[in-house]
Amino acid sequence: MLHGRRLVLAALLAGVCSSARADEGMWLFNNPPKKLLKDKYGFDATDQWLEHVRKSSVRFNSGGSGSFVSSSGLVMTNHHVGADTLQKISTKEKDYLKNGFHAKTPAEEVKATDLELNVLMDIEDVTERVNAAVKPGMSAAESQKARRAAINEIEKESTDKTKLRSDVVTLYQGGAYHLYRFKKYTDIRLVFAPEKDVAFFGGDPDNFEYPRYDLDICFFRVYENDKPAKIEHFLKWSPAGCKEGELTFVSGHPGRTDRLNTIRHLEYIRDKQMPAQLALLRRREVLLKTFSDRSLENARRANEEFFGIQNSRKARLGGLGGLQDPAFFGKKREEEKKLREAVAANPELQKQFGSAWDDVATAVGELERIAKPYNFYERGMAFNSDLFADARTLVRLNAELKLPNKDRLREYAAGGLESLHERLFAETPVYKDLETIKLADSLSMLVETFGAEDPMVEKILAGKSPTARAVELVSGTTLDKAAVRKQLAEPNADIAGSNDPMIQLARMIDPAAREVRATYEQKIDEPLKQAYAKIAQARFKVEGDSVYPDATFTLRLAFGTVKGYQESTGETVPAMTTVGGTFKHADNHGNVDPFKLPQRWHDAKASLNLDTPFNFVSTADIIGGNSGSPVVNREGELVGIIFDGNIQSLVLDFAFTDEQARAVSVHSAAIQECLRKVYNATGLADELGK
Amino acid sequence: MLHGRRLVLAALLAGVCSSARADEGMWLFNNPPKKLLKDKYGFDATDQWLEHVRKSSVRFNSGGSGSFVSSSGLVMTNHHVGADTLQKISTKEKDYLKNGFHAKTPAEEVKATDLELNVLMDIEDVTERVNAAVKPGMSAAESQKARRAAINEIEKESTDKTKLRSDVVTLYQGGAYHLYRFKKYTDIRLVFAPEKDVAFFGGDPDNFEYPRYDLDICFFRVYENDKPAKIEHFLKWSPAGCKEGELTFVSGHPGRTDRLNTIRHLEYIRDKQMPAQLALLRRREVLLKTFSDRSLENARRANEEFFGIQNSRKARLGGLGGLQDPAFFGKKREEEKKLREAVAANPELQKQFGSAWDDVATAVGELERIAKPYNFYERGMAFNSDLFADARTLVRLNAELKLPNKDRLREYAAGGLESLHERLFAETPVYKDLETIKLADSLSMLVETFGAEDPMVEKILAGKSPTARAVELVSGTTLDKAAVRKQLAEPNADIAGSNDPMIQLARMIDPAAREVRATYEQKIDEPLKQAYAKIAQARFKVEGDSVYPDATFTLRLAFGTVKGYQESTGETVPAMTTVGGTFKHADNHGNVDPFKLPQRWHDAKASLNLDTPFNFVSTADIIGGNSGSPVVNREGELVGIIFDGNIQSLVLDFAFTDEQARAVSVHSAAIQECLRKVYNATGLADELGK
Repeated sequence: MLHGRRLVLAALLAGVCSSARADEGMWLFNNPPKKLLKDKYGFDATDQWLEHVRKSSVRFNSGGSGSFVSSSGLVMTNHHVGADTLQKISTKEKDYLKNGFHAKTPAEEVKATDLELNVLMDIEDVTERVNAAVKPGMSAAESQKARRAAINEIEKESTDKTKLRSDVVTLYQGGAYHLYRFKKYTDIRLVFAPEKDVAFFGGDPDNFEYPRYDLDICFFRVYENDKPAKIEHFLKWSPAGCKEGELTFVSGHPGRTDRLNTIRHLEYIRDKQMPAQLALLRRREVLLKTFSDRSLENARRANEEFFGIQNSRKARLGGLGGLQDPAFFGKKREEEKKLREAVAANPELQKQFGSAWDDVATAVGELERIAKPYNFYERGMAFNSDLFADARTLVRLNAELKLPNKDRLREYAAGGLESLHERLFAETPVYKDLETIKLADSLSMLVETFGAEDPMVEKILAGKSPTARAVELVSGTTLDKAAVRKQLAEPNADIAGSNDPMIQLARMIDPAAREVRATYEQKIDEPLKQAYAKIAQARFKVEGDSVYPDATFTLRLAFGTVKGYQESTGETVPAMTTVGGTFKHADNHGNVDPFKLPQRWHDAKASLNLDTPFNFVSTADIIGGNSGSPVVNREGELVGIIFDGNIQSLVLDFAFTDEQARAVSVHSAAIQECLRKVYNATGLADELGK
Repeated sequence: MLHGRRLVLAALLAGVCSSARADEGMWLFNNPPKKLLKDKYGFDATDQWLEHVRKSSVRFNSGGSGSFVSSSGLVMTNHHVGADTLQKISTKEKDYLKNGFHAKTPAEEVKATDLELNVLMDIEDVTERVNAAVKPGMSAAESQKARRAAINEIEKESTDKTKLRSDVVTLYQGGAYHLYRFKKYTDIRLVFAPEKDVAFFGGDPDNFEYPRYDLDICFFRVYENDKPAKIEHFLKWSPAGCKEGELTFVSGHPGRTDRLNTIRHLEYIRDKQMPAQLALLRRREVLLKTFSDRSLENARRANEEFFGIQNSRKARLGGLGGLQDPAFFGKKREEEKKLREAVAANPELQKQFGSAWDDVATAVGELERIAKPYNFYERGMAFNSDLFADARTLVRLNAELKLPNKDRLREYAAGGLESLHERLFAETPVYKDLETIKLADSLSMLVETFGAEDPMVEKILAGKSPTARAVELVSGTTLDKAAVRKQLAEPNADIAGSNDPMIQLARMIDPAAREVRATYEQKIDEPLKQAYAKIAQARFKVEGDSVYPDATFTLRLAFGTVKGYQESTGETVPAMTTVGGTFKHADNHGNVDPFKLPQRWHDAKASLNLDTPFNFVSTADIIGGNSGSPVVNREGELVGIIFDGNIQSLVLDFAFTDEQARAVSVHSAAIQECLRKVYNATGLADELGK
């Protein structure tokens, strides 16, 4: 599944992507591939069409995409995007994640604890203003600070003026800076979710595979002033959905790609970063599996996180498989060679851009050097605990609020404070048993990584074993109480005098964490931005301007045709599956978990039209974060919803291909059929598109 | 569970252990703690008693222990020791591992594919002859070769003369060499096994925990000339079994301890070796879990290996937890400091032994340097495939048979060839789908470890991705056929001309593998033997001679009292559980897997004496490899069978403690009760002890 939040373990760098052929491209809405669509498909992507699709698209800040599907604030996304909320609002007695949910009236809708949805209202290019802050002769440290100050101020001005959430986003990995203004919704209520057994039918074995049979959907409703919000731009519903060979569009938020990275950078990802990420994911997968196996309630508590980890593990294995394939990597190498030769052949280009590849190599070398302390101390890998994360936030918030806005760390700048507060003060469940085993394991990994005699490790463990220390920290903290967090978030809170052990740990570690972050920002992030900006410009010059930036969890438009493919074994995979095929698939796997359909599906079987298309594939260019993206036709009607890519699509992190790579969606006809006949959700089905 | 074969991933070094207090010690049968037993328990361990217990004890060469329990060749061991055989003789249709097995007549007994059982007939101290081969002034390489030649020749002479399997074993980590002569049984047939659900009741969550409720037993029968073997030494059965506070003995084969390692060596184990082993175990656990989740038949194929990996992971986590505990490690540090100070205070000792700790440090530094190539190329971590292992054996056998016996690698020396042939030619099932995913994953790990551009990696992958290469190798080889292996094992087989891709890979890699092995033997193994022999002697001088060697999968005698303990939480854990408690434990966990009892247990519940003792704990000093060891009383009667240690016992790898650490056994009374009332195995129950 293509969940964006699953990408949090990835590094933070993105690039600029190659000129498009085929159905390639994650296009900016303010630079859409109008000519390409006209030439190849005879389609006019009018400004009006684009605005309507854009404003019907929704970003889930928990990581994922969605769309408005009624005038009364109804939002459709994937079950696995909603899973974070389903987990948080569930209890031992009411397990919505496992058993599903259906509010028959608005009064029955259940409020999410900390969900924020964003709709992109407009885009302003602020590249010149951001770059103007960086003066010739500035050191990397000075450049980084100047750039940060400019961005913090642009955001604050915009927020003050428009009251809209205002984010300056980095595109083309430093080649451009755009100001995105979002309408923000924070009163989000759950309307409908199917059982996990059918939303994630086939489980980990079928994840990233095709053919598929998943009802991976879930509905929320956005509220304003305690009433369902009135929505101007929402998608009409296509009851017939798309057909094989049809052109479709995907509007969503691909999380991250690394297509334009240099070979040196990709080698680092292949040989160091991904193996380390996979080792961490496997470690956490085993940890949560053993915790879950102890009791059904344990399994419920860890459920959503566990499946997220499994999902990331499978996704990364696929990506690494691509990088470890000499044919795939050789092609990337060849592309870079060609571009560098073209630059070298032109003295002017060589003078302007020639050093960029070496600059990347230098920054990557620096990254390799500091990766461990950066990941463990600044990114919190040593402290795998929500309670620690909150402690860190409170400690830093206290310090940053004392600084002028322009000098603050990005995540504490004035523009984002409201969202930060909403997240921090939310009444989300904290399970101290789960927190303890996670923290103990990550402290153990800290010891393994730096050695038991490392002075910082000794300070952190305070003479105890990792397990004993984790027990002490988690049992001693009161940060699980929202009221305590709220009080400590007050600007005048006495953080320095707090005797909460988690706050004390966060304070103790903060100087070292800030130091390695500064190194990262000044010696890696800033030089990479400058170098990749040069490479991007070199590509513009050499390859023309028909390029799109690497994915950065900002809204993009992709397009593709509904189309099957041929497996390497020669087998033909058809574009669509049917509702009836689901029952056969369950039979073929003995009807045991994760191939066990909910009883109500068996009960409804006789009434279902088994020929209804269920899932389908298309050539659209998508990646993690696109989960829940609406699939629309030329008329802008919803014909499906993205929920996955096949195994062959997992290399799209690094290069586009449409030979076998496919985006996987739930078909709009199946959604209607199942809502009406399996779930008796007639009211909801009737509301869709209206 | 305490399975010895689970230790194959550990390094190969063992030491000499501290003088015994409490119930400490894994004692040699030719140097038993007679005085200690007399002084502490008033027990006379007569030579006759010792001989009877020794000759009633059985070693499973698949990794584990057992005992003769009837005059007709009946052998009792753990279900999880027999699991390797249960897996190999099962098919999709007949899953003995899962569903159990009961041969009501000898004709129904099922022959194991490749099991070899050994009984220790006598022990001869050959230390002087082995050490005499090493002349003053020899380099480490020369010493290692001279020592190997002496050992190969001693074994051959003994085999030729006695026809018994003859192994020279290294004790006190180089302090002594003993020649062990074994009676060998190779016609082994399965008599009885319960269902895995009750043999491993509680699964991974309950593994290494207490209280427990497991019927972890299994019966085989040894045959000679196609008839049940007549056994002189077998254990009488104690129907009442042991009581709380009673002295008991354990005779079995602890696999490996590292109690006498130096601090530098333990630091290496703690900071490098165990984290690497755990990363590998987690990786393989996730790999096999995802393979198993695809279908029930996949799960069956991977079953035994999967649980072995889970078991090792949990065991090592416990051991690492001990080493990462500053209190535990500090005590080890203190002990070493004292010994070194005592040596330094005596000029004679200092001159003889003072350099040993630095010599260990040098060897460990070398180990750190070559660990990766040694593990990947020589120990086969790059090629996680039974088919590759067979190819390697065939390639080396062909080369080694051309050498005189004294110059051969240890595992191809004349004394062991018969056992090697039996294993290599056995008709064990090979699942090419499982072989492929395992090999692909390990090839991927090879790329991650050495980089895709490493020349050896490039040669191994032959221009393909790890997965494509694995498919090519596994689908192309015919080594899954025993007849092919047999033909290639002929001394005149044309290995060099073979076009089998797995043979070609094994040939290609062999020079590099042999080179790193030679480095290991000469720069690590031999210097460590010499250094640890010095440390052992220093301990004898300083601490007296009441010492036992570190475990080496050789027969040992341990002793201890049946005794509960107090958890760190203050909770008292009683020594014994009851058969009735099993049903309650299942209820407390919702009767779902792995806490689901077989139906026949519920059917038999009314007839069972629910107060029958089921599992019990004692203070005996055991470790992995002791699984299946008989627990006997002063009269030499069988009162139980070891199957596990509790969580607190997992640090026994590094130091003995009887505060909370306990050995866990099945009680002899429960075995009788269950055989008769749950399984209607009256004939078998009647035969026990007769």
